[in-house]
Amino acid sequence: MKRIFGILFILLSFHSFSQINDSTAIKSQVAKAIKELGDFVAIPNDALNGDDIDDNIFWLKKKFNERGFNTTELETDNHPLFFAALPIEDNKPTILFYMHFDGQSVDRSKWNQPNPYKMVLKAPEGDGWKTHSFDDMLEDIPYDWRLFGRSTSDDKGPIVMFLNAIDLIKKNGKKIPFNIKVILDGEEEKSSKPLPNAVKVYRELLEADFLIINDGPVHSSGKPTLVYGCRGITTLSLTTYGPVKPQHSGHYGNYAPNPGFQLAHLLATMKNKEGKVIIPGYYDGITLDSTTIEVLKSVPDSDVAIAEKQQFKTAEKVGDFYQEALQYPSLNIRGLGSGWIGKEARTIVPESATAELDLRLVPETDGNRLKTLVKQHITKQGYKVIDHVPTKEERLKFDNIITITESSVTNAFRTDLNNPYGNFLVKTMKESFNDDVVQIRIMGGTVPISPFINELKIPAFIIPMVNADNNQHSPNENLKIGQLAYGINTFYSILTSTL
Amino acid sequence: MKRIFGILFILLSFHSFSQINDSTAIKSQVAKAIKELGDFVAIPNDALNGDDIDDNIFWLKKKFNERGFNTTELETDNHPLFFAALPIEDNKPTILFYMHFDGQSVDRSKWNQPNPYKMVLKAPEGDGWKTHSFDDMLEDIPYDWRLFGRSTSDDKGPIVMFLNAIDLIKKNGKKIPFNIKVILDGEEEKSSKPLPNAVKVYRELLEADFLIINDGPVHSSGKPTLVYGCRGITTLSLTTYGPVKPQHSGHYGNYAPNPGFQLAHLLATMKNKEGKVIIPGYYDGITLDSTTIEVLKSVPDSDVAIAEKQQFKTAEKVGDFYQEALQYPSLNIRGLGSGWIGKEARTIVPESATAELDLRLVPETDGNRLKTLVKQHITKQGYKVIDHVPTKEERLKFDNIITITESSVTNAFRTDLNNPYGNFLVKTMKESFNDDVVQIRIMGGTVPISPFINELKIPAFIIPMVNADNNQHSPNENLKIGQLAYGINTFYSILTSTL
Repeated sequence: MKRIFGILFILLSFHSFSQINDSTAIKSQVAKAIKELGDFVAIPNDALNGDDIDDNIFWLKKKFNERGFNTTELETDNHPLFFAALPIEDNKPTILFYMHFDGQSVDRSKWNQPNPYKMVLKAPEGDGWKTHSFDDMLEDIPYDWRLFGRSTSDDKGPIVMFLNAIDLIKKNGKKIPFNIKVILDGEEEKSSKPLPNAVKVYRELLEADFLIINDGPVHSSGKPTLVYGCRGITTLSLTTYGPVKPQHSGHYGNYAPNPGFQLAHLLATMKNKEGKVIIPGYYDGITLDSTTIEVLKSVPDSDVAIAEKQQFKTAEKVGDFYQEALQYPSLNIRGLGSGWIGKEARTIVPESATAELDLRLVPETDGNRLKTLVKQHITKQGYKVIDHVPTKEERLKFDNIITITESSVTNAFRTDLNNPYGNFLVKTMKESFNDDVVQIRIMGGTVPISPFINELKIPAFIIPMVNADNNQHSPNENLKIGQLAYGINTFYSILTSTL
Repeated sequence: MKRIFGILFILLSFHSFSQINDSTAIKSQVAKAIKELGDFVAIPNDALNGDDIDDNIFWLKKKFNERGFNTTELETDNHPLFFAALPIEDNKPTILFYMHFDGQSVDRSKWNQPNPYKMVLKAPEGDGWKTHSFDDMLEDIPYDWRLFGRSTSDDKGPIVMFLNAIDLIKKNGKKIPFNIKVILDGEEEKSSKPLPNAVKVYRELLEADFLIINDGPVHSSGKPTLVYGCRGITTLSLTTYGPVKPQHSGHYGNYAPNPGFQLAHLLATMKNKEGKVIIPGYYDGITLDSTTIEVLKSVPDSDVAIAEKQQFKTAEKVGDFYQEALQYPSLNIRGLGSGWIGKEARTIVPESATAELDLRLVPETDGNRLKTLVKQHITKQGYKVIDHVPTKEERLKFDNIITITESSVTNAFRTDLNNPYGNFLVKTMKESFNDDVVQIRIMGGTVPISPFINELKIPAFIIPMVNADNNQHSPNENLKIGQLAYGINTFYSILTSTL
């Protein structure tokens, strides 16, 4: 890897960019990609079903082999991973691409088409969509029409864009100045559990200079987007206790301890009314210099538009604006429960009250450290912290008992904004599209490949390819035709530019 | 009424008490009462079914007529009330008795007998019960055996005790120094809605010097019990708001306002950690003098036993002990809800959070006044209080919005501990059973007849007749045989003693 970095710095001053100026060529390639995506979508891909995954790998093997890739299946504890690589040349830097071919389960009754695995072409019409036959499909199909079907966007679309970019590169007789490795995940929607361990087993095979992940949507502005990281996540579940069984609120209201009030008092000590966490140390280690703030501010978000859309007056004050807020870990009450509410409400003193918290993590805030801070804080509030439902002895011994259960930690990943590969990607995309690239320092959400990235220990970038309103994970998932052109173009320009 | 009070004070110094010293006579009467209760229980009595109520009234009419009562049905907006009276003599003080003959709905699958309306005799055996045939039934049936069936305790048992006390009085040739009026409610379990209005329509018919309610269980010590009042109730439902739709907690955690934290902050301002309400004025008007404290302390409760049973270390500190706590209004969180908890938990910023509160009332704290105090307090915390789901305009205009909905108020009732009729009842019961009478100044729970009592404006007392562990409102409701003897004895001694 060190050798590669040496080459990199020499090459940086000689880079050149490739663009596809022939709009007929790209339209023709998009038409082929639509056909290929329809074939791919037709293979069901629910990772709960091992046969689905095998069928998809069979298809992928054929398609990558056709393009001159060597392919193999990497065995794991669960489904195999699919791996493909063009013949390696030692003097070239290596890019590892990550995409996934499994999709969320489907509930056919909720889709506006008979079969979510039979891709449908639709044109916008009024507030809705009008279905068109693929027989009508011409090479000048409008870019705002869409392809509806499971995984058109998430994440089969990008795989097809990649394959068609390779075709176009070959057609145009271009050289690829990189070694190309591709790893395709068959259980991303089921948390990619085997992935981190695969790095340990297949480390040499996966070795690369940097990782490009093609998953998720571009920024809502529709502009070219490069993402440097994602927040991690962990969760805590807090339960406080009243009487061992619910009691009649007449007989025991203002006598038996009320678990809801206990929980309210406790939660109120964790954040101030502006939404900032006031547990000491929670934000330790995070500093944002003026250059970083500039990059964050350059993202074309509108805080006013978000507030208008979500219908609130003032956002929480963790950051001064949306992108700044995402640079910090969150402490979110995702659920509260005690007794019953609404029509089910009963006149009782409930036996317990539960708050479900999720903590989104940034690289500076390790999940286990944050959980420890929260637990120490709770202990300081006078609580006996336990990890089980209290016994009678414990109940009679301590006034304030709390059961805390926790999930495992998916830590954040974030590649430095000044990483030379990142600079290369930004410059390539900027010149290719003649447009500013939206640079997201860290996305708010969490991707299951975070542990894989942290295990690989190479710079990682997400280059999303699909439209933001793609109904990812939901019924009527779709892909804008224009994004096929965007993706083919993006892969083409990256793979034909030199560092 | 003033005239009656004049007589009362003269009579007070000449009162005499009656006791049934003939245990054979009482046992024989208990045997007859068991037979009669079996017949009565056999008539289903779910107030959702008008025919049930009519069938019970038909039976009651016959039984009261047999004992020389004049009877009538009082028409109301819903089911009729049953009214019975012995012939009135103008120079006697008048007691109005209230009981009810409807029962909770039954789920036969949850009872340990085929038909909850076919009364079953059971003897305690080990930790459970052994069924006996009524054919085995002798006049020396043990007093710890029980009768299982819907309304054996709540509240047909007391009606049958009353009827059999009348029989015994007649048999013993005793005179009743009172006018006796009886009102029997057919929809107590459905909140007795027609009752307060019936007072307006039938005021003269219901006129009496004092009211005795025979419903609910005796104190858990099993001792003779006299209750002077019951707390009232009203409810408030509080809902705070986050984004208009649930948001992904990665993308919008620590940005979109979190309704759970808002609610926690708000609830934490209402009560201190010891459980005392800190909303100004909430306890205004309540004073407990040393005599009252003595009466409260004389109730044979064990705070230690309650804590042991309910498994908590320290009770809330509204009062120094259980009976004292009940002299104050409560502010209870009976339900909390936001997003999902447990296995259903999702990584979202929820759109709202709700707390369901119930407020138990005492005579000093009118329900509407307390609700106003709570709402004023919430306004002072910076909330815009509304009574509907906020519009988009409201959401964008106010940082903190809360929807408060409220139920109607059932105010408390409480008869003075020094009321002369109360003194008479205590003395009568004490001498009849040669035991201390447990005097409950106010019960924690709420009875639907409170508005009826407050409308009647006469001293009211609850004299419960049944065992505390009767499974009231639940499957396997039951009545201890010994309580039949207790009830017949109690009615007998009250009705044959002079003021």
